[in-house]
Amino acid sequence: MQKSASASSLGPGGLDLSDMFFKPIQNTSPPSPTKRHTKISVIGAGNVGMAIAQTILTQDLADEIALVDAQPEKLRGEMLDLQHAAAFLPRTKIIASTDYTVTVGSDLCIVSAGARQIAGESRLNLLQRNVALFRGIIPPLAKYSPGTILMIVSNPVDVLTYVAWKLSGFPSNRVVGSGTNLDSSRFRFLIADHLDVNTQDVQASIIGEHGDSSVALWSSISVGGVPVLSFLEKKQIPYEKETLEGIHKAVVDSAYEVISLKGYTSWAIGYSAANLARSILRDQRKIHPVSVLAKGFYGIGDGDVFLSLPAQLGRGGVLGVTNVHLTDEEAQRLRKSAQTILKVQSQLGL
Amino acid sequence: MQKSASASSLGPGGLDLSDMFFKPIQNTSPPSPTKRHTKISVIGAGNVGMAIAQTILTQDLADEIALVDAQPEKLRGEMLDLQHAAAFLPRTKIIASTDYTVTVGSDLCIVSAGARQIAGESRLNLLQRNVALFRGIIPPLAKYSPGTILMIVSNPVDVLTYVAWKLSGFPSNRVVGSGTNLDSSRFRFLIADHLDVNTQDVQASIIGEHGDSSVALWSSISVGGVPVLSFLEKKQIPYEKETLEGIHKAVVDSAYEVISLKGYTSWAIGYSAANLARSILRDQRKIHPVSVLAKGFYGIGDGDVFLSLPAQLGRGGVLGVTNVHLTDEEAQRLRKSAQTILKVQSQLGL
Amino acid sequence: MQKSASASSLGPGGLDLSDMFFKPIQNTSPPSPTKRHTKISVIGAGNVGMAIAQTILTQDLADEIALVDAQPEKLRGEMLDLQHAAAFLPRTKIIASTDYTVTVGSDLCIVSAGARQIAGESRLNLLQRNVALFRGIIPPLAKYSPGTILMIVSNPVDVLTYVAWKLSGFPSNRVVGSGTNLDSSRFRFLIADHLDVNTQDVQASIIGEHGDSSVALWSSISVGGVPVLSFLEKKQIPYEKETLEGIHKAVVDSAYEVISLKGYTSWAIGYSAANLARSILRDQRKIHPVSVLAKGFYGIGDGDVFLSLPAQLGRGGVLGVTNVHLTDEEAQRLRKSAQTILKVQSQLGL
Amino acid sequence: MQKSASASSLGPGGLDLSDMFFKPIQNTSPPSPTKRHTKISVIGAGNVGMAIAQTILTQDLADEIALVDAQPEKLRGEMLDLQHAAAFLPRTKIIASTDYTVTVGSDLCIVSAGARQIAGESRLNLLQRNVALFRGIIPPLAKYSPGTILMIVSNPVDVLTYVAWKLSGFPSNRVVGSGTNLDSSRFRFLIADHLDVNTQDVQASIIGEHGDSSVALWSSISVGGVPVLSFLEKKQIPYEKETLEGIHKAVVDSAYEVISLKGYTSWAIGYSAANLARSILRDQRKIHPVSVLAKGFYGIGDGDVFLSLPAQLGRGGVLGVTNVHLTDEEAQRLRKSAQTILKVQSQLGL
Repeated sequence: MQKSASASSLGPGGLDLSDMFFKPIQNTSPPSPTKRHTKISVIGAGNVGMAIAQTILTQDLADEIALVDAQPEKLRGEMLDLQHAAAFLPRTKIIASTDYTVTVGSDLCIVSAGARQIAGESRLNLLQRNVALFRGIIPPLAKYSPGTILMIVSNPVDVLTYVAWKLSGFPSNRVVGSGTNLDSSRFRFLIADHLDVNTQDVQASIIGEHGDSSVALWSSISVGGVPVLSFLEKKQIPYEKETLEGIHKAVVDSAYEVISLKGYTSWAIGYSAANLARSILRDQRKIHPVSVLAKGFYGIGDGDVFLSLPAQLGRGGVLGVTNVHLTDEEAQRLRKSAQTILKVQSQLGL
Repeated sequence: MQKSASASSLGPGGLDLSDMFFKPIQNTSPPSPTKRHTKISVIGAGNVGMAIAQTILTQDLADEIALVDAQPEKLRGEMLDLQHAAAFLPRTKIIASTDYTVTVGSDLCIVSAGARQIAGESRLNLLQRNVALFRGIIPPLAKYSPGTILMIVSNPVDVLTYVAWKLSGFPSNRVVGSGTNLDSSRFRFLIADHLDVNTQDVQASIIGEHGDSSVALWSSISVGGVPVLSFLEKKQIPYEKETLEGIHKAVVDSAYEVISLKGYTSWAIGYSAANLARSILRDQRKIHPVSVLAKGFYGIGDGDVFLSLPAQLGRGGVLGVTNVHLTDEEAQRLRKSAQTILKVQSQLGL
Repeated sequence: MQKSASASSLGPGGLDLSDMFFKPIQNTSPPSPTKRHTKISVIGAGNVGMAIAQTILTQDLADEIALVDAQPEKLRGEMLDLQHAAAFLPRTKIIASTDYTVTVGSDLCIVSAGARQIAGESRLNLLQRNVALFRGIIPPLAKYSPGTILMIVSNPVDVLTYVAWKLSGFPSNRVVGSGTNLDSSRFRFLIADHLDVNTQDVQASIIGEHGDSSVALWSSISVGGVPVLSFLEKKQIPYEKETLEGIHKAVVDSAYEVISLKGYTSWAIGYSAANLARSILRDQRKIHPVSVLAKGFYGIGDGDVFLSLPAQLGRGGVLGVTNVHLTDEEAQRLRKSAQTILKVQSQLGL
Repeated sequence: MQKSASASSLGPGGLDLSDMFFKPIQNTSPPSPTKRHTKISVIGAGNVGMAIAQTILTQDLADEIALVDAQPEKLRGEMLDLQHAAAFLPRTKIIASTDYTVTVGSDLCIVSAGARQIAGESRLNLLQRNVALFRGIIPPLAKYSPGTILMIVSNPVDVLTYVAWKLSGFPSNRVVGSGTNLDSSRFRFLIADHLDVNTQDVQASIIGEHGDSSVALWSSISVGGVPVLSFLEKKQIPYEKETLEGIHKAVVDSAYEVISLKGYTSWAIGYSAANLARSILRDQRKIHPVSVLAKGFYGIGDGDVFLSLPAQLGRGGVLGVTNVHLTDEEAQRLRKSAQTILKVQSQLGL
């Protein structure tokens, strides 16, 4: 019987109690070699990785969770802390190791590991260190779970999703970045909070590059099925473009605000990643703004660039991209982001 | 319309969009003054408090969560980080303040705040600082939510639950400490992990003082309905008392182990507190080993001492204590713990 | 100790085991007189009422469910059948009686009872028999739960919601009909099934009179945030008004189809009512197309008529109506439905 | 794009809207041929089968549910009625057909179909008609899902589980009968209701033949970890064996009572089957009293007989049987049931 790494031998006198407690029935077959349960691996046991793993555990999204981190003590502490809650949760096998063999047979691998910026370090230098880090993460993940879907959460998420795609050799539908899924939730919350409605009744998306140059899709915002801009027009309510951009700016700033207040973000990105994991693993075919290979969309051209677009997610990973209409200005901003990212990528030597 | 503190004014030109989006129906009544939703307050936004609040949020146990902490920046950062996940969760109102007015009308108040030990500080001195801290926490909680149930998580949990009881003036059924609920989960996990069964199929309890002197109830352990000790006897399998105590020691050590590995415990105590919150607020009438006024049980006598006993929890708080049979030795250990605690309490000047 | 009606005395020799198993702790207070748990009553234990009650039970929406029906045997059979599942569910108290005292203190009362049409009976005659039935249902519900919210599911739902409002004397925000909430789900499913997307990504509403004269809100349909009509226009895709009406007709027909195939509808209306119950009792502030007092909306005038409009629901019942823009034709159809309903109501003698 | 049978063509002018709404990303791979989602088939769309299917749907246990029944109209009506609730539930693909091809690739097949007793028909004759029915059910299930687990709910469940095992040619760990899982829930509810505790805190099992000759395991009953019989002994509370048997009799009678009151049982067996489905498909390794190949246990001997024993269930089906101690009398009753069943089976000509 396989036991978790944490189990000490509890049997009296060295006897194996489990062989006494259970007896096999007759005429059985050996267990099928086919993997039949759902497994998620989370790489990086920092604040973000642990918020992701714990939310996935609470929401009962996987039958097995594997954690990988370079620091064995911290990692084992986190594993034990989750395991100790077993009496309060449905059974989920939780394992952890510094060795990637523990991820074997994953349905989904979520990468939250990333280098931290050193004082005075250039963004390019930081990125190059992250690429080096990913060289040690992505190939073993692809090796032990050749059919897995990769979800990248580490920042800068668009470039690193591209890096993961290149290093994995996976088809593009099996590599996705968490992108602007969280930005969109923040956007929807700000609107919902103002109107005192349920955030889930607010339809609103932010797409493009995760960060300052993201694009808010104003024309598609609706509340309870009422398209907001056309509502304002029909009611002849004047509004200024600056006002709308102010809301978008509040979304961008809110990430910085949380970091300045508590030092990092964790809970919201944990829920965002769990939300994407559910759509993928339970084949929900839901549409999320996530970072996908954007080549050929909105005149972006032939460069291999990942940007967030409203993508349908399911068991097959990225099933397609919603054919949302962009204004010329919106499309131009997307193309500009794509150019910037491509320029950075050309310096990475991949 | 009441908006959360985080909402900036989003309406174009200063107009209040919500008044335009929604119209009242006719012949309505003003909302009833009766409080009709479920509210939980969590005091202390450190690792433990936030794990509790976030687990309660994920498990959708409350319609409103209020956070209180002495550090306004950290507190606001944690509030925003939870609020930003609104698109991924059922609607829960999340508010936060350094001022206890935010807790008004709570059904349950969970106290995780506590002073940290200073190098070289005596345990008594630390405790006295915690009592001082509780003097600033418990009376305002009792004032703003006179009908609330208090759940104490801060350590030393048994003494501080007594302190909360005294400071609140509440009846004893409305003051409970998280006690050995988590120790028991660890105990059940260790046994289940060894036998490769679901932890929820393992019945096992640790009672008494939370910490090194807790008491494992060997005679009541059963797995899948099979009482373990009598199983071993019937199968004539020898076992040594030392072996059993070794398992108990592993439970006690596991808390220390997690702290030494990751610096603190958070996830498991978060799940434990959420588990108790559910039994109380959803009137589950489940039996949990939690710290209750133990006066008069097992010959403990007339002293006002809180210790973990298997207590039935529901909307009324502590509904009763299970009349579990203890061996003479077990009862004696309980009484000894009670004496130690009473002696400490006598020095607190309450 | 209060026990359910189904409990036979199980104690040996007539002793009450529960008094031996549990002991009270000291210094407790008597339980607070304030009602503190969530209670739903379902009136009518037919296929619809039982699908509602069972879905509410599975989704864990209430701490207590009370069933009322005129047939005591059927009613007791249904109660026992739900109670027997207790080991598989969180604890919910389930009680049943032909007497309305069992509904005392409900937060929500759902009425599914209704007379069946007799061969050759006129619609007006059937309605008058239903009014007579409601005279025996609504006043006792209002008496035993004066602060409850009434949800009417029985058909014709719009007129009977008006009848319930009149008979209860309640403010209009506490009386709601399930209306076109289910029609809208069918509408969204048909569109989602065609596009192979998640139904929850389809925004689409049917409002107005529940039944053949309902109004589909074409301009507000969006899929994944993409407004469908303007998408078709921008892509210069021609479409015919007849095509759109064909989809609406398919929705209207689908209810008749289910009835012709299996004899009645049950599951979908059960989920619809549970969906509304959740928004109300957990204060979700979600927008649902439900039957509300429509007086004064869209030029409907001063008549007391209930029709489905997109209404925000929460613990206070109907919180407001979304100010959705209707075309002249849509508004005219609403007004025509209102006239028809008012004419019928004038014959009821209320 | 595959659409469900219910989708009419909704595109304007015969265009396929889904091809316009979604665009593929580049560098994708064709979807993996490996089945990656969870599928449950339910055979029989009567009251029991539909309660099972609907509970599985509400509890979100499968990504796809297939229904099979001999009556196409009833079947299609039930399918549509479930599909219409799509807006209220996570996405689950629901399909239905009279043809077993619809079950292809199931992880679990639950058989609720069965012949009804004709007035004056002998039990043997009824059983032979059920065997004939199973000859049309089991082989196609085994053909289209060669790796599936079979769960038999139809009565007499123990004999029909044996029949399914023989007809499928499956190893015994992949054929299980719902057996006394529901009887045990009823047993636990009756005890819990009397003590006013949560049924999940009551450990109690009924094993053996489902029906009148089942065996209650008195020695393993515990409440909140307190073994009941030894509690009574320690407290020197007298009890009579007749009293205990009275409780068991109440359990046996309660099934008959529900049938006499409402005509059939549905909800509780639906929850019971969903409970077993969860343990199996989510690899919960929980212990349930279910009908398994009992050959060799408790001196039952070499006959191929299925009886309920406390079995551990997981993704591999039956993982083992708990080595619970029976009294001589209990073991003798099991053997007697086995003899009776074997005698019946010998007349079936399998």
